[in-house]
Amino acid sequence: MEYRFSTKAQGGGGSAIEEILKYAGDPSVISLAGGNPATETFPSKELAEIARELLLEQPDLALQYNTPRGYAPFRELLTARMRKAGDGRDFDDLFVVTGGQQAIDLATKVFCNEGDVVLTEEPSFIGALNNFRSYGAKLVGVPLVEDGVDVAALEKAMDANPNAKLFYTIPSFHNPTGITASVDKRKAVYAACVKHGVVLLEDDPYKELPFDGVKLPSYKSMDTEGIVICCNSFSKILSPGLRVGWVMAHRDIIAKMVDFKQIADVHTPMLNQLMALTYLQRYDIDAAISKMQTLYGRKCKVMLDAIEQYLPSTVTHTTPKGGLFVWCDLNDGHDTREVAQYCAARQVVFVPGSTFMTDMDAPCSAFRLNYSTMADSRIVEGVKLLGGALKEFLK
Amino acid sequence: MEYRFSTKAQGGGGSAIEEILKYAGDPSVISLAGGNPATETFPSKELAEIARELLLEQPDLALQYNTPRGYAPFRELLTARMRKAGDGRDFDDLFVVTGGQQAIDLATKVFCNEGDVVLTEEPSFIGALNNFRSYGAKLVGVPLVEDGVDVAALEKAMDANPNAKLFYTIPSFHNPTGITASVDKRKAVYAACVKHGVVLLEDDPYKELPFDGVKLPSYKSMDTEGIVICCNSFSKILSPGLRVGWVMAHRDIIAKMVDFKQIADVHTPMLNQLMALTYLQRYDIDAAISKMQTLYGRKCKVMLDAIEQYLPSTVTHTTPKGGLFVWCDLNDGHDTREVAQYCAARQVVFVPGSTFMTDMDAPCSAFRLNYSTMADSRIVEGVKLLGGALKEFLK
Repeated sequence: MEYRFSTKAQGGGGSAIEEILKYAGDPSVISLAGGNPATETFPSKELAEIARELLLEQPDLALQYNTPRGYAPFRELLTARMRKAGDGRDFDDLFVVTGGQQAIDLATKVFCNEGDVVLTEEPSFIGALNNFRSYGAKLVGVPLVEDGVDVAALEKAMDANPNAKLFYTIPSFHNPTGITASVDKRKAVYAACVKHGVVLLEDDPYKELPFDGVKLPSYKSMDTEGIVICCNSFSKILSPGLRVGWVMAHRDIIAKMVDFKQIADVHTPMLNQLMALTYLQRYDIDAAISKMQTLYGRKCKVMLDAIEQYLPSTVTHTTPKGGLFVWCDLNDGHDTREVAQYCAARQVVFVPGSTFMTDMDAPCSAFRLNYSTMADSRIVEGVKLLGGALKEFLK
Repeated sequence: MEYRFSTKAQGGGGSAIEEILKYAGDPSVISLAGGNPATETFPSKELAEIARELLLEQPDLALQYNTPRGYAPFRELLTARMRKAGDGRDFDDLFVVTGGQQAIDLATKVFCNEGDVVLTEEPSFIGALNNFRSYGAKLVGVPLVEDGVDVAALEKAMDANPNAKLFYTIPSFHNPTGITASVDKRKAVYAACVKHGVVLLEDDPYKELPFDGVKLPSYKSMDTEGIVICCNSFSKILSPGLRVGWVMAHRDIIAKMVDFKQIADVHTPMLNQLMALTYLQRYDIDAAISKMQTLYGRKCKVMLDAIEQYLPSTVTHTTPKGGLFVWCDLNDGHDTREVAQYCAARQVVFVPGSTFMTDMDAPCSAFRLNYSTMADSRIVEGVKLLGGALKEFLK
């Protein structure tokens, strides 16, 4: 049978991420391609006791259907936590999603018709880009510079695309570059979005992970006009496997997103919501996060030192102040997809830069490295292998 | 700010289900409006020990990211279980979803452009209908008769709608009617779908719940041509709150659905997959299901007896052989939305039939009753209250 797939389904999908996850599981290869948080940061013992208690003491709640918005006491606690951090106003509302990815999915469905434009940082997170593509949105990339997006280019793109519905941004320790938008830049970007009536989709899963513990004000904290959809996730601060996140936005936007949430998966699994809630009630998550900041800061420094020591001197790199990623560039005409194959045969993998581009077919000399899950010695070993392979490839 | 929502987001959404779930939580009202499985059927003690063990012994697996298709050993076990039941051929593949609702969402996205037709039984499950609506699909309802859909009407609808992409059906103990398609009817429906190149979306969450234990062959078991997408769920046989389901279909369809799964929520929560897997490995789920069949069979009989005793004699009803629902009809010009308000003021609620119709605005004299969660005495009390209210309303 010839299947008559929808136009949306004909573009292929996000197989690049699936490919990356495959590499990450092969023990004979050193993978600098991952994006996982470190397993040792998961409070597994605490969660084991919490899960057991919840299932024994509140089986009705943990195992039965519930409402699409999420469990009310959980929503209240998350709202209070955000308000304490300066995020949210009276017109804002909050609901629970099955991981941050679902927030992007629902926001796109609520705002984008086929042919509408989504403005994004270039490069950007492939899971978001593929989501926008899946709704037939046209991607318009805006280059990133050292302190965030190029605001003049953003304004120009907004002028040129009156059907731009969303500007998608990862303000803190951006995936894939590690770049953080400065406060001044955030103000300018917010003003541009207000001026052009473009909804600002703030995806900030790494915001809790500055190496020095200093967090910058979110877009949501500046949002006097109700144009910011703020996506949050427990994936990097508690566990990604639980798939629990939350969204704060103007209540009119949330109402639409919840309508679509209900027909996407009815509600986020109750046990998972209750586990996150109980963990937050019972333990000091900020103390745990502080340890993660130190851990990732150390690993990042190990990687940056190894890059300086082992990679060819022509290779430039970002110097992240938080998060999980370093962005490197060969600064020549080579396409790193080709380089990646060469290096994979030499037991080291990374993600080629084209993966994160609005035009995935164009050659790209940049690539992403990740340091979050490996032992320090293995990071050094991986970068050393990579350096050797690159020097051989480039000579 | 005036939000420029997508066309998809302008139709409102599935608020009817959210309303029903609200009623279900009010203890002063007897709700015959629910659709939950009975909490006492959840193996909460077993799941409590399983969850604790998994989190202590395999935290990497339970709490870390995994692949969009789902955990491989879980997929293998589900495939084996389906094969044993006669479902699936070499061209079929299987993946894990975050509850059966997500299967419908992904199938619709893979097949439907705006304006494409989805054929559905009339009435049908509102969560599915709202999903089809959310992608801009046009719904064409085909009436249900005693032993399944009216096949002549289905063929006629297929002839009239060459852009029909999907036929959506709940073959066993249908929601909202409780009707089961006979084997002959299944064969005729399958042949019609093959003839017209329409993909058959088989949503069968109640199939394990025949009161007499006798299961009919699924559409998947007849599927020599690879046109059946078979959606399955643990919601009615283990726990709905865990949000775990699975889909079997031709591998070309599954590949497209997995692409969209990845950008919907990355993967179904790992702890939840592992809990279902471990439960299946360690306990006899078929023995547990057998007890559910007896339980629901008894409750259904209690409700049917009460209906005969207390409802006006002009009210007709289906006689389900499994599942959770009875469908009643006033057989007059009254719209049961109006009747429902009248009854709610008298402390008893049900779901008006219009909720389940392709045209939700048209008056409908039918309504859905549910018996699965209440004590027998409360079922009787609820139907008695309803009977009194109906007699008063109709006089």
